[in-house]
Amino acid sequence: MLEEKIESLPLVDHHCHGVVRRGLDRAAFEALLTEADAGGGPDGGLFDSRIGFAVRRWCAPVLDLPAHAEPDDYLARRAELGAAEVNRRFLRAAGLAALCVDTGHTPEPLLEPAELGCLAGAPAHEILRLETLAEEVVFDGVSASAFAAEVRARLEARAPRAAGVKSIAAYRAGLELSGERPSGEEVAKAAGRLLRDTERGLAGCDAPPRVRDEVLHRFLVWCACDLGLPIQFHAGYGDADADLRRCDPLLLTGLLRELARKDVPVMLLHNYPFHRNAGYLAQVFPNVFVDVSLAVHNLGDRAWAVLAELMELAPFGKVLFASDAYGLPELYHLGALLFRRGLGRVLAEGVAEGSWTERDAARVAEMIASGNARRAYRLGDRP
Amino acid sequence: MLEEKIESLPLVDHHCHGVVRRGLDRAAFEALLTEADAGGGPDGGLFDSRIGFAVRRWCAPVLDLPAHAEPDDYLARRAELGAAEVNRRFLRAAGLAALCVDTGHTPEPLLEPAELGCLAGAPAHEILRLETLAEEVVFDGVSASAFAAEVRARLEARAPRAAGVKSIAAYRAGLELSGERPSGEEVAKAAGRLLRDTERGLAGCDAPPRVRDEVLHRFLVWCACDLGLPIQFHAGYGDADADLRRCDPLLLTGLLRELARKDVPVMLLHNYPFHRNAGYLAQVFPNVFVDVSLAVHNLGDRAWAVLAELMELAPFGKVLFASDAYGLPELYHLGALLFRRGLGRVLAEGVAEGSWTERDAARVAEMIASGNARRAYRLGDRP
Amino acid sequence: MLEEKIESLPLVDHHCHGVVRRGLDRAAFEALLTEADAGGGPDGGLFDSRIGFAVRRWCAPVLDLPAHAEPDDYLARRAELGAAEVNRRFLRAAGLAALCVDTGHTPEPLLEPAELGCLAGAPAHEILRLETLAEEVVFDGVSASAFAAEVRARLEARAPRAAGVKSIAAYRAGLELSGERPSGEEVAKAAGRLLRDTERGLAGCDAPPRVRDEVLHRFLVWCACDLGLPIQFHAGYGDADADLRRCDPLLLTGLLRELARKDVPVMLLHNYPFHRNAGYLAQVFPNVFVDVSLAVHNLGDRAWAVLAELMELAPFGKVLFASDAYGLPELYHLGALLFRRGLGRVLAEGVAEGSWTERDAARVAEMIASGNARRAYRLGDRP
Repeated sequence: MLEEKIESLPLVDHHCHGVVRRGLDRAAFEALLTEADAGGGPDGGLFDSRIGFAVRRWCAPVLDLPAHAEPDDYLARRAELGAAEVNRRFLRAAGLAALCVDTGHTPEPLLEPAELGCLAGAPAHEILRLETLAEEVVFDGVSASAFAAEVRARLEARAPRAAGVKSIAAYRAGLELSGERPSGEEVAKAAGRLLRDTERGLAGCDAPPRVRDEVLHRFLVWCACDLGLPIQFHAGYGDADADLRRCDPLLLTGLLRELARKDVPVMLLHNYPFHRNAGYLAQVFPNVFVDVSLAVHNLGDRAWAVLAELMELAPFGKVLFASDAYGLPELYHLGALLFRRGLGRVLAEGVAEGSWTERDAARVAEMIASGNARRAYRLGDRP
Repeated sequence: MLEEKIESLPLVDHHCHGVVRRGLDRAAFEALLTEADAGGGPDGGLFDSRIGFAVRRWCAPVLDLPAHAEPDDYLARRAELGAAEVNRRFLRAAGLAALCVDTGHTPEPLLEPAELGCLAGAPAHEILRLETLAEEVVFDGVSASAFAAEVRARLEARAPRAAGVKSIAAYRAGLELSGERPSGEEVAKAAGRLLRDTERGLAGCDAPPRVRDEVLHRFLVWCACDLGLPIQFHAGYGDADADLRRCDPLLLTGLLRELARKDVPVMLLHNYPFHRNAGYLAQVFPNVFVDVSLAVHNLGDRAWAVLAELMELAPFGKVLFASDAYGLPELYHLGALLFRRGLGRVLAEGVAEGSWTERDAARVAEMIASGNARRAYRLGDRP
Repeated sequence: MLEEKIESLPLVDHHCHGVVRRGLDRAAFEALLTEADAGGGPDGGLFDSRIGFAVRRWCAPVLDLPAHAEPDDYLARRAELGAAEVNRRFLRAAGLAALCVDTGHTPEPLLEPAELGCLAGAPAHEILRLETLAEEVVFDGVSASAFAAEVRARLEARAPRAAGVKSIAAYRAGLELSGERPSGEEVAKAAGRLLRDTERGLAGCDAPPRVRDEVLHRFLVWCACDLGLPIQFHAGYGDADADLRRCDPLLLTGLLRELARKDVPVMLLHNYPFHRNAGYLAQVFPNVFVDVSLAVHNLGDRAWAVLAELMELAPFGKVLFASDAYGLPELYHLGALLFRRGLGRVLAEGVAEGSWTERDAARVAEMIASGNARRAYRLGDRP
C-alpha cells in the first residue's frame, strides 16, 4: 500500500547530467556503466555486479525484453532501437517531476538540459559548475588582478537562469577547505599561478586550464554564497581520478560551520561510503542537505541499506533524491526506481515496527521525493 | 520470551547527565533533542527524524497520550504536567539499576546526581570531568609550577566519591593523544600557556579557562590512571562544536596501548559512526569497554543496527549501556527502551540463527545490561 | 536449494597460514582465537563473543560434541583427541579446493604448506612474504649497494614455486605508499639505514632486522610486479601491533593507480572495517581483488553483513575467499563454513528480491568460491 504509493511518486532529480547521443557497443556501454576507467574486465565484467544485474532486471523490460535478459541480447536490442529511442524510453520511465542538470562536464556532446526535460516531460534547470566557469574565464583571457571580478560578473550574469552551483573541489584539491573567505590578494595570487600553469600548457601538452587550488575552490564557493545560490559539493564516491580519502564530507566541517551562518543551502552529493558522516552533518548544520546518488544505482537492491544508514541521523527534511545519471539514460531510470524501492522499504519497515504511522510515512516520502528539493532550490519560484 | 525478558532488564546507565528543571516550549525542546545547534529547521524540523518519531511513539504514552501523538499536542501535555512531573515519570520509566552521572557540563542548573538517583529509584554515582577539574584549579588561582600538584591533590580528594573520570579531549585537542606520559616540565609549560591565555581573557571576552592542550589532556588521563580510576573518553558523535574527524577512537590507539599495561578500565563513549573501530579496540585491548550511547536514542528503531555492528568484534563482556541523556528526561527513557529493544533483537536473531542458545543469550543480556558495568566500575564495592 | 548448493562448494583459500602442532590449554587457545594480545579477560572471555559462540556452535560437532558445548568441555575433548587429529579433522571439514599459504610468519613451528595440503586433500601453494625475504637477505649479510640486486635474485629464484607475494607494509610503515618506483639510490640508502639499525641490534636487544621503511616496502612491491607475481596487501583488521588507521586500503590509491597500468593482480586482504572502501577500489581499478578474510570467522553469523557490504560496489568477478586461518585449525573450518553461509544468504536474498536468477546466482557463487582465485593466480597453470 505505502510501497505502491511510493513506487509512483514523482521525483525531483536534483543532480544529474546529460546522456550520450551515440549508439554504444558492449565495451562502450560498460565504460559508462560504473566509475571504472575501463569496462569489461575478467569474465562477465561489470554485468556481474549489482549494477549490471540491475540493468538486466529493470532496464530490459523497458526495451521490451524479458527481465534478466542476457547482456549481449540487451545490447543488441539497444542498438536496434537506436540511441534516441532508448533515451526517450528511459527518461520517460524515470517519472521525474523536475531535473537539475550539471552542465559542467562534457567530454563529448551530451543532451542539453532542455532536451532532457523534454524527454522526461518535466522542467529542467541548470546547475553551474563553478570550476568550469572559472576555467572559461581563464581560457577567454584575463589578468590575475581582474580574475576575481570577472568570475563574479559571469556568475552573476548566469545566476538567474541557474538553480544552483556545484563545486568539484573533491576531485581537485580535496574537501579539506578552510572556512575562511580568501582575501582579494590571495585570490589574485592563486589566479596568477593558474594563469602561469595554463600558459606553460601544463608541461607541454595542450591541456586546458584546471582549477585545483584550495584558495580558488573556496573563493568560488563564497562567490556563490554571496549570490544566495544553493551550493552542491561532490563528496564521497566518484571515479578513480579522485582520491576517495579526500572526499569525506567531514573534511568540509570548517567551511560548513561558516556557511551555516549565511542562509545558503549546501547539498552534499553521493557521500558513499561516508554517508553516515553526511547524515551527521545534516543533523548538526541547519543548511546541509544530503543524498546517496550514484551509490543508489550502483548498489541495485542494496540501495535501501545505504538509504537507511543515511536516514539514521539526517532529519528527513534534509534528505534529497538525485540520480547522478551520466551518459547512459538507463541510470535515470535505475536511480529513480531503486531509490523509490529503497525508500519504500525503509519507510514500510518503520510502519511495521510501529516507529511511525503510515500517514506520516507517506508525508515523509513526499518530502524526500520532491518537497525538500523544491523548498531548498525554490523551484516553485523558478520559471 | 527472550525479548520480553530483556525488555524488563534493569540497566546500569554508565554515562549520563543532568536534566533541566525548567518548562520547555517547542523550540527549546527541539534544541535539546539532538546535537544540532538550533532546533526546528525546515518543515517538521527535528520531529521529522528518527528521534522525533521515537519521542512521539514511545514518550507520548508515558505522558498519557496515545502513541504517535502530534508534536504540538505532546508539548502541550508536557507543559501541563510541568517539568518536575515529567522528569519524575521518564526517570522512573527508564528502569535503571544505577547511574554514573557526568557533572562537568552545566551551562544551566541541572538536576544533581542525587536527585536523578532519587527519581530513578537507583544509586547515582559521579563521573568527574577531568578538564573541568583542571579549569577550576586555574580559575581558583595557581602558578604554572604548582598546577600539576594541585590537580593531583584535588583529583585524589574527590576520587573516593567518584565512580570514574571523563576526558573531553575529543572536543578540544582531538583524540590523537600520544601514549607518552608528559614530563613535569612539559605540564608546567602547558599550564603556563593556559594561565596566560586565561589572563588575557581569551581575546577580551570574559571566557573561563579552557583546557585544549594535548599535553594537558594526556596529563589528566595519567593522573586518573595513577589513582586507578576508570577513564571515559568522548569518542565519535557529538555536537557541531567538535570536528568529528578528530573523534575517531582509532586515534587513541597509541595511548590505549600504554594504558593497557596498567590495570585501568577505559570506556569509549558513543563512537558512532566509528563504532566498528571501537569494537576492534575492545577486542584487541583487554581494558577497553565500549558503548553506542547517544546514537541509540537518535537512531530510534535503527539502534539494533549499530549495536549489531558494535558487537561484531567487541567481546560481549566489554559492551556497556549508556543513555548519554542530557537536558531532556525523555532521553533516559528512550535510551533505555531503544537499547533493550535493539539488544533483544540482536540476541534473538542469534538464537533464531542457531548462533547461541537462549540460555547463553539471557546471560549475555544481563552482562551487557548491568554486569559488565558493575564489574568495570566496581559498583558493588561502592557505597 | 541454492544455499544447499553453496554449502558444498569447494573453496580456494587464497590466503591462509600454518597451524600449531602442539596441544593447547584454554588460555593458549583463546590467545590464538582472535587478534587480542592476551586471551581470556573478564568473565566468559573471548568465548563470550561472536567467534567464541561460533566455535561452540560449529566446531564442537566436528569433535563429536553437541552443538553449543561448554568451552571447558570443548577444550577437554580437543586435548583428548590431540593436535594431530584435531588438525586433520578441521582441515578436512573445510572443504578446500586449493590453499595459498603465507609462510612468512612463524614465531613457532607451524604446519608447512605441503602438510596443510595433505590434510586438506588439496594442492597447497606458497605465498612469499616480501619483507621476510628482504630481512633474510639482511640477516645473511649484504652491503647496502648489493641489497637490491640480491633481493631481486632471491625473489626470482623463489618465484617459480610461489603463487604470489604478500606485503605487510600496513603493519610497518602503513599503507600510505606513493605510486613511484624508488630509484636505485633511494633503495641503497634505505638499505643502509636498515643495515645500521640491524647492527645496532635495535637498541641493544637482539632483535632481527625489520623492514619498516616506506621506500623498501615500495621497492619490494615493484620487484614482485616486475616478475608478474600477484601481490597481496594486508589491509584493515589485524592485531594490536598495527595502527588500524594506517591500514585503510584507500591509502594505497596512488600505488594502485600505477600498478593498474601493469597487468599484475593486486589482492586487498581482510579490509574490515574499510571493506566498502575496498569494494570501491575493486570497481575502479581493473586489477584489484578483495576479500573480507579474518573478519568472516571473527564475525560468526554476521559474516553475511560485511560480505553484503563488500559486494555493493565490488564486481563479483573481483571477490575472493580467504580464511586467513592462523594457528588454530578451527579457523579453516569456521572461515570456510561461515563464508559459504554468508555468501549463500547474500545470493539467496538477491534471488528472493528478483535481483538475479538462481542460475546466475549459482554461477556467481562458483566464481567467488574458486573461479576468480584460479584465474587471478593462474592456479590451473601451476604444478
